[in-house]
Amino acid sequence: MAKSVKLINNGLRVNPDLQKERDTGTFNIVELTNIIDGGPERTKRRHELEQLLFSDPVFTNPNRAFLSKSQLYDYGVQKSVKLFHLKRKYQWNEEDYFMAESLLRKEISLSLHHTMFIPAIERLATDEQKAKWLPLAQSFKILGTYAQTELGHGTNLLGLETTATFDQSTDEFVLRTPKITSMKWWPGGLGKSSTHAIVLAQLIIDNKSYGMHPFMVQLRSLDDHTPLPGIKVGDIGPKIAINTVDNGFLILNQVRIPRDQMLMKNAKVSRSGKFTSVGNSKANYATMMLVRVNMTNWAANIACGSVTAAMRYSCVRRQSALKPGGEEEQVINYQSQQYKLFPALATAYALTFASQQLHDYYYKIYPQLARGSYTNLAELHSQSSALKAISGELSVHHSEICRRACGGHGYLWYAGLGEAVAGGASIITAEGENTVLYQQTARYLMKQVALNVSGQTLNGFTSYLNNDDIYVNPIEKSEHCHDLQILTDIYQNMANRIIKKTAHRLHADMSSGLEQHIAWNKNMIQLVRSAQVHSHMSIVKAFITSVQSLVLSPVLKQVLHRLCVFYCLYGIINNSGDFIETSSINLNQLELMREEEIKLLSQIRPDAVSLVDAFDIHDETLCSVLGVYDGNVYEKLYESTQQEPMNKTDVHPSYYKYIRDLLHSTPQSKL
Amino acid sequence: MAKSVKLINNGLRVNPDLQKERDTGTFNIVELTNIIDGGPERTKRRHELEQLLFSDPVFTNPNRAFLSKSQLYDYGVQKSVKLFHLKRKYQWNEEDYFMAESLLRKEISLSLHHTMFIPAIERLATDEQKAKWLPLAQSFKILGTYAQTELGHGTNLLGLETTATFDQSTDEFVLRTPKITSMKWWPGGLGKSSTHAIVLAQLIIDNKSYGMHPFMVQLRSLDDHTPLPGIKVGDIGPKIAINTVDNGFLILNQVRIPRDQMLMKNAKVSRSGKFTSVGNSKANYATMMLVRVNMTNWAANIACGSVTAAMRYSCVRRQSALKPGGEEEQVINYQSQQYKLFPALATAYALTFASQQLHDYYYKIYPQLARGSYTNLAELHSQSSALKAISGELSVHHSEICRRACGGHGYLWYAGLGEAVAGGASIITAEGENTVLYQQTARYLMKQVALNVSGQTLNGFTSYLNNDDIYVNPIEKSEHCHDLQILTDIYQNMANRIIKKTAHRLHADMSSGLEQHIAWNKNMIQLVRSAQVHSHMSIVKAFITSVQSLVLSPVLKQVLHRLCVFYCLYGIINNSGDFIETSSINLNQLELMREEEIKLLSQIRPDAVSLVDAFDIHDETLCSVLGVYDGNVYEKLYESTQQEPMNKTDVHPSYYKYIRDLLHSTPQSKL
Repeated sequence: MAKSVKLINNGLRVNPDLQKERDTGTFNIVELTNIIDGGPERTKRRHELEQLLFSDPVFTNPNRAFLSKSQLYDYGVQKSVKLFHLKRKYQWNEEDYFMAESLLRKEISLSLHHTMFIPAIERLATDEQKAKWLPLAQSFKILGTYAQTELGHGTNLLGLETTATFDQSTDEFVLRTPKITSMKWWPGGLGKSSTHAIVLAQLIIDNKSYGMHPFMVQLRSLDDHTPLPGIKVGDIGPKIAINTVDNGFLILNQVRIPRDQMLMKNAKVSRSGKFTSVGNSKANYATMMLVRVNMTNWAANIACGSVTAAMRYSCVRRQSALKPGGEEEQVINYQSQQYKLFPALATAYALTFASQQLHDYYYKIYPQLARGSYTNLAELHSQSSALKAISGELSVHHSEICRRACGGHGYLWYAGLGEAVAGGASIITAEGENTVLYQQTARYLMKQVALNVSGQTLNGFTSYLNNDDIYVNPIEKSEHCHDLQILTDIYQNMANRIIKKTAHRLHADMSSGLEQHIAWNKNMIQLVRSAQVHSHMSIVKAFITSVQSLVLSPVLKQVLHRLCVFYCLYGIINNSGDFIETSSINLNQLELMREEEIKLLSQIRPDAVSLVDAFDIHDETLCSVLGVYDGNVYEKLYESTQQEPMNKTDVHPSYYKYIRDLLHSTPQSKL
Repeated sequence: MAKSVKLINNGLRVNPDLQKERDTGTFNIVELTNIIDGGPERTKRRHELEQLLFSDPVFTNPNRAFLSKSQLYDYGVQKSVKLFHLKRKYQWNEEDYFMAESLLRKEISLSLHHTMFIPAIERLATDEQKAKWLPLAQSFKILGTYAQTELGHGTNLLGLETTATFDQSTDEFVLRTPKITSMKWWPGGLGKSSTHAIVLAQLIIDNKSYGMHPFMVQLRSLDDHTPLPGIKVGDIGPKIAINTVDNGFLILNQVRIPRDQMLMKNAKVSRSGKFTSVGNSKANYATMMLVRVNMTNWAANIACGSVTAAMRYSCVRRQSALKPGGEEEQVINYQSQQYKLFPALATAYALTFASQQLHDYYYKIYPQLARGSYTNLAELHSQSSALKAISGELSVHHSEICRRACGGHGYLWYAGLGEAVAGGASIITAEGENTVLYQQTARYLMKQVALNVSGQTLNGFTSYLNNDDIYVNPIEKSEHCHDLQILTDIYQNMANRIIKKTAHRLHADMSSGLEQHIAWNKNMIQLVRSAQVHSHMSIVKAFITSVQSLVLSPVLKQVLHRLCVFYCLYGIINNSGDFIETSSINLNQLELMREEEIKLLSQIRPDAVSLVDAFDIHDETLCSVLGVYDGNVYEKLYESTQQEPMNKTDVHPSYYKYIRDLLHSTPQSKL
């Protein structure tokens, strides 16, 4: 039954402990893989791309752990440029290209050209401007990035200090970063790669500020790549991960660009310096929202990879005996190990489904936005903020648990889990710092509650806030714990109560005379908590919706239903205070849920490896000696030491420099 | 009032936002610094060492972010050897030496020589053996490590596969690592540095196994450092941090050592091959326990550093306005930011006090062990396991929150927080994987409950388990929330109930006929949880004990009391399910505690910077551009980019190799 898409063809025997797991899985892995990929044709396409990419040594360098930062960047550029050539040669569409990036774990340098620069042109430029810039960008005549964040200001766009002052005499904008804090800081590809950047700057006409607008600025010569006059640009230095990317700083000293290099889809400046707002000023956020949607997907991918590695390793690793004197046990059979990995497994599925749904929702709404209809903008903004924030946090949290679940070996670079965690950690503060995003979601939630109080019926992601009935949890026996409707109600009631309580407090504080901003800060912990419980509930609901709506074979339906129930119960038990406090569960129900949760561990156990195999992550993508498909973990661990340059000689140079003298000196003789 | 020990003497103006914080602190920082150091003379000594170390360019290299792994090791050796020379020159005692290591954030290569090799000789060798080996080790005639963990076995010592077979014909032991999984793997300093290792191996005499014993094995020639015959040794490759250390592998192929190189304090083998057990076989654990005590201290130091950096940066960083149109606000003034940093601050103090107390307890018990009295061994083992485990987890958790609280800039290597988190993460799986350690603590707790049930009154760290009364939480109004006795009772009741419930289940399962090991695995989640709540309670109690027992000025007493109450309330509120479930609090009390917690944020706020200044961490130790004492953060961030080798030229070599062709090629022409 459990036939995997991928076959071992490297001649190595699959570790028997892992083979046994695959022999006993209960469902058809290919069916699930196709669902995760978004259809059998996408699975097929992915396999084609994997074959193309991983037959090329450029994409399979096992030595990257030993590259210096500059070499790592160099290698990332090499991979990026090769990808661009492949895109051109094989006429990949965007979907193909992003799939290829994802297969390479995004460890390339020039990613922002496709993920932000081109989408920003598409969303912010007029048709005329698009006709000029898009072909240049798409044919790599120029390389671009999106420069918004500054040294002194990140998520707070209103605080950005870069200015673009209109000079009517020459029909140009003059761009400046007036203070140390104003320099652009962070944009990927800005440091050493990009020839152009879309620079966000305060538009100033006749000493009057007209807010933030996007400007196309050339940074480097197209002849020799040297920075243009007035431009100081460089790399911001090493980060805790993602060092293939040259995140950069940019100092603009009176840089002049023609008027038509303000991207004018949403606001125009005329020859005479007249400012006209065309669309909704918030349309500028469309690019940022897209990036958040993509980051949610990235977070899901990281979680899938981490649990794949840890699950396979936990079947191969044997440690101690459950029964005294017995054979050493696969560590997966310890209850405590299952309680680390199965929640991570369920989370990986939950995030996968949630990100698929958010992606579909974005592309459902985007045509409306492009047409200038902003009805759903606020909800999309709230929901993409919420899901970007919680997906990053959940992915990193569970990936780190997976890393720790591999014991000491999880600390090795070749285990791959440390990089997964460190890379994923960027999601939490990049493209909208999470606490700020939660507050934006909270602001939306508070508005929705107010609308509801004023008599309006809410739709969409907040429709559960319509409910003001007292909730009575009907769970009395174990079967009830498996009812997805009951579980949905429990989560919705919990979130509803916490959000309403916060709204009431906020309202009471303002009614008592507190200014709004003071009342907001006074309730900020609960506001953030409100957004978090809404986000958590949204992930739970996405999982449940997928299990309910996907067309699945009965066996697979049962497997996913079980995992989904486990996810719901785990979330309740591990945040029990929230659920008890809101009368969403009582203590007897909590006990019952704990019993069901334990039972589910045993029921998930036979499919544990099949459920990670279904992610069908290529060994070159997973990049983990602990997670290799064939399970020959110890051999791979030992092999990995052969990459280590320090092992090329028996005696390290530091012996001759320092140790020899130490060993041979008599006390007091040295210094 | 808030005069700090450290003065700015680099001529830079202190950032006014930070100066303001220091001007308004309420207590005498020096008094608190002295307590943290363990007395004014220790503070003075630390300042002397700081001056000595940080006036030496060997210890202040700002470029280490750009070193390759091999260069990093080389640099670590250089620093280690310099430290050894200094130790000799200035006749430092062990305390001085460890303080120096700590000031260097332990970023040296040969640490295990002092932290494990020498202590292991002291604890495991006979007097005669000590007389031979200690002088050699202390004078650096030999360099050593402690080789226990293998590729296939870590925390489970019984599973170790390396053998030491007695050959009576030559009066030697023959050491072997028979399988791939048997090779030693992980010991620090093993890969390229050490000349000797204490190797833990299964003693075999006449085909009979006598368990694990320590053997002194020479690895490398003292003439030229080449590995001796039969020895294959090397580095295990890159890790997610701590790459100054050459963690190594060791393959032993029939390596012969004289009989007297078995360290025989606790077990002897005679010339005729007769085995005699001398002491308690568990005495072997004394070295491991010491390492856990030291790791607890390391965990505390990491937490102190992380919160220092994040707190100072949060006072300097201004973002958005609390009041619309108003001045941008110091981010520390946002309630949500306080709710990230103040729990981290309180945790740093809690861990500091807990590790001090554990250290004192170890050195109180150790002389008993050395005399062969093992009465307190089990409790020391349980408590050091519990505190090592929870300290690492809490330190990493709060350090990561601090890192995230610095927004995107926390992701920069020069922020220092990423290294703190990645370094701290090693504590969780090294020297006893935490989940295994929690189970060992749980085993002790279960035994204590059984003793108590059988009528014995418990003493020491588990005396709260004597209590079988029904607890009634007396909190009715806000003052009650500040009563340390009430807070102690709440935590003790919570832990007591959870532990007893687990004990009863385990007992019931066994009474119903389940074999012990099956019952244990069936209850493992709750057993681990029991140890965790005991550990959490122990940390809380350590903080409370210190506040109650330290001789403090009234002002400082009030400041620490407040922080301690905040720590207790935060722990209850953020684990409210545990407390509600055990009837340790009710929902009204939870609400009241939330209100008090919010009030405490404002009360702690004026002392926030003074409380981190009191840790008195030198800028060179802290190693964070965000946490510099003078608060000139943006200048330091920009300065740090000048270290970046990629910024040495305007155009990076990768342009000529890859980008130029891309930009200039016509579509389809390349590949």
